[in-house]
Amino acid sequence: MKIHQITIKDIARELGVSVSTVSRALKDHPDISPQTKQLVRDMVDKMKYKPNAIALSLRNRRTNIIGVIVPEIVHHFFSSVISGIDEAAVAAGYNVMFFQSNESYEREIMNIQSIINSQADGVLISLAKGTKKFGHIRQLIDNNVPLVFFDRACDEIETDRVIVDDFEGAFNAVDYLIKTGCRRIAHFAGPQHLQISYLRKRGYISALEKNGLKVDDELIVTCDTFEEAQEITRLVMSRNRPPDAIFTVNDMTAVGTLNTMKSMGYKVPKDISIVGFTDGLVSTITDPLLTTVSQHGFEIGKKATEILIKRINDECESASPITEVVKTDLVVRDSTRKL
Amino acid sequence: MKIHQITIKDIARELGVSVSTVSRALKDHPDISPQTKQLVRDMVDKMKYKPNAIALSLRNRRTNIIGVIVPEIVHHFFSSVISGIDEAAVAAGYNVMFFQSNESYEREIMNIQSIINSQADGVLISLAKGTKKFGHIRQLIDNNVPLVFFDRACDEIETDRVIVDDFEGAFNAVDYLIKTGCRRIAHFAGPQHLQISYLRKRGYISALEKNGLKVDDELIVTCDTFEEAQEITRLVMSRNRPPDAIFTVNDMTAVGTLNTMKSMGYKVPKDISIVGFTDGLVSTITDPLLTTVSQHGFEIGKKATEILIKRINDECESASPITEVVKTDLVVRDSTRKL
Repeated sequence: MKIHQITIKDIARELGVSVSTVSRALKDHPDISPQTKQLVRDMVDKMKYKPNAIALSLRNRRTNIIGVIVPEIVHHFFSSVISGIDEAAVAAGYNVMFFQSNESYEREIMNIQSIINSQADGVLISLAKGTKKFGHIRQLIDNNVPLVFFDRACDEIETDRVIVDDFEGAFNAVDYLIKTGCRRIAHFAGPQHLQISYLRKRGYISALEKNGLKVDDELIVTCDTFEEAQEITRLVMSRNRPPDAIFTVNDMTAVGTLNTMKSMGYKVPKDISIVGFTDGLVSTITDPLLTTVSQHGFEIGKKATEILIKRINDECESASPITEVVKTDLVVRDSTRKL
Repeated sequence: MKIHQITIKDIARELGVSVSTVSRALKDHPDISPQTKQLVRDMVDKMKYKPNAIALSLRNRRTNIIGVIVPEIVHHFFSSVISGIDEAAVAAGYNVMFFQSNESYEREIMNIQSIINSQADGVLISLAKGTKKFGHIRQLIDNNVPLVFFDRACDEIETDRVIVDDFEGAFNAVDYLIKTGCRRIAHFAGPQHLQISYLRKRGYISALEKNGLKVDDELIVTCDTFEEAQEITRLVMSRNRPPDAIFTVNDMTAVGTLNTMKSMGYKVPKDISIVGFTDGLVSTITDPLLTTVSQHGFEIGKKATEILIKRINDECESASPITEVVKTDLVVRDSTRKL
């Protein structure tokens, strides 16, 4: 018979409070009320909870390594985030190990296991597209490993996060297109279960509505890669009433769209305006240069790392999870008509 | 007084053989002659060598993790290598942790330490530009951690390596330029203490000589980044006898050159041909598309990983170090005149 080892999870469940409340109560954290602390201590006695000595000793041994999980290392946006993480970590004397989930839930679990085995002092994660369950993430919280989400977070886990204002970024891009005279604006959208794709589409719709333009479902197409854009662009332009602008969910899709437009004989931006989202390296290489929403990947990586290091050193002012929203900027280059 | 612990390094020194010979003799490897094995065993007895029990037990515990050190994660060439490593590792059931040295010797040492602490089963390294001493690499060999170099190797360490045929790649690119009628071909070169830069320059010179063209030192300029190319291109084109073609040491330099030529009013390839080296993503985005030398980064990463995994599992046919040279291909696109 396997004996069930009592964990702080059991105590939290029994008391109907969060795991982090129990964890902080046990550490005598000032944010937790004396009443709650007493309740937790009583429950600890009642349930005969013993902190896992091995886990504790491992936790106390610093490795000065931060573990990072990104969906893709080779990616226009995550590349910038990685640079930001690396700079902030090295400045604070930490080394960084990067893992890639390749958008797979199974690999994310494997990565978490590798990070726990490596005894990293803290973890930064941007969730894989395939991740819809979060037990492996909870495992980190239960093991008291500080964790900060960047870009792709989930609401079910109470922890720090640094995210992008995707809604506003999309809104501003589409609002700008309208101001330059575009009236039939298409959106090449990402998968809608991903919050970032969902919010970008909402921003697009909201900008149309605010400007009194009709939302035409025919102009909203799922298309979020360079390859798909080559096919979808031809399809969309062959319709009866083709668009006069396209707002894409990311830069690579915009580049695929731009190249296809050119090869079809359209002049960009004279015939059609194109706006991307990312502001990666490619947007400074295309001809014409790409107008895009800068999501400041470097800043995101840097901020997430700074928060994580504060958590590792118990230097955060508040024990409550921090949500930091990084504002976007519209970078107007040459793929859109001028105001 | 610190007692000096006898290591296999001491035994190797005493016998005047390599550390890997001693290591393999102790493992009774078939490649080592019975005579040598006897010599090693005698010296072990004489010097009272005891294998480090902790190290041995750590070595025998598999983590199924491969540690990878690259100079830059965010890099047109290493990005492809990373994809190749990842694919081969995952196919064989290994997880991969990536570290970046940022071209710094000190960070490379830190990375090696992190990898040893994490007990990775094996290591893949491409050396930093700043690395000119190799004690930290020897530490891996002494700890019996299998190690494979990719792209940037050093001759002082006897171990497996997967490298690019840089000389031939450069030779073929310049030979092609000459065949299309170019006669004043400039070379934007990398730092010459780096073997890959040195070999590419040698290939350039050799192609000129083979075709009976004079090597003009004025046409060989150190310039190996996107930013530098913007300045150097103006400089080179302002000379009395400007070149009719430029062969750059990497793609990003080629893109910087191309953009600057266009902004100066030159038509590419009518006025001047440009050839890069890498065949990264950017070469398929520029206008005109870039002619470049494909160094097959994905293949390099994949092969290096496959060799490493064979070493980890003791499945290599030969205990002697393997050198695998990956051939390049000239990818002719639109930035060069046609034959």
